[in-house]
Amino acid sequence: MFKHILIATDGSDGACEALKVAVEMQKIFDADLWILSVFRHHSLREASMSMVRPVDPENMDLMMKHYASDVAERCKRYALEQYCPKVRAFVKSGRPAKTIVRFAEEKGADLIILGHRGLGNTEGFILGSVSHKVSGMARCPVMVV
Amino acid sequence: MFKHILIATDGSDGACEALKVAVEMQKIFDADLWILSVFRHHSLREASMSMVRPVDPENMDLMMKHYASDVAERCKRYALEQYCPKVRAFVKSGRPAKTIVRFAEEKGADLIILGHRGLGNTEGFILGSVSHKVSGMARCPVMVV
Repeated sequence: MFKHILIATDGSDGACEALKVAVEMQKIFDADLWILSVFRHHSLREASMSMVRPVDPENMDLMMKHYASDVAERCKRYALEQYCPKVRAFVKSGRPAKTIVRFAEEKGADLIILGHRGLGNTEGFILGSVSHKVSGMARCPVMVV
Repeated sequence: MFKHILIATDGSDGACEALKVAVEMQKIFDADLWILSVFRHHSLREASMSMVRPVDPENMDLMMKHYASDVAERCKRYALEQYCPKVRAFVKSGRPAKTIVRFAEEKGADLIILGHRGLGNTEGFILGSVSHKVSGMARCPVMVV
């Protein structure tokens, strides 16, 4: 039924709960499990409006990429510890919802799993949360944990 | 993992797709499958603003209840035809998202499945769709098909 499961994570508590469900689903369906950690490029415009200035703005992108890679690796390690062998981790940059949906389509995922907190959900009531956008745009079922 | 699956339906195409997934999930997890069809009471205020007046406004509630019951029964019949024995159908009145979440909590559902079209999703970009509201409010995973 589900052979290619994509779990999108930002390292938040909600995403960690989603990962647990994804690992269980992987085992039941003997699916491939793809972990996707998305980071946004540090925008100079955002930085100019922020009250907190980064010490080294040129390296902000690199820092965010490192953080996203670290999240992806930790998630992969967790999956392997749970005896979930068919796991791969990916890191992408871009707007979270669009990047998740595009990745799912390109790779042929048949289920996307997300945490309902995290991934920018604090702004959910105004802008629409990532999980809402993904479940609206994706061509496959989306499980919000 | 999932022992009590709730599928909420309004008879739309999206909800029918969700039902197919719910039936497959029921079989895999050997879960109880609860079909919930929600109808809203016909509001006299809404009727007064509508350009189309019902012929018999006093019977509107009854008509909507009959329609919701018919949807629930058709879904149950489909599930039984798919050799999905542990199925029950329910009809409730109220605001869809709140009614679905309350029902899920009262019954102890551990997975809610919804179609991402239907259930009032045309107004989703302004008011927030039912699936968005349910995935935000529910205490269990929500799968949007």
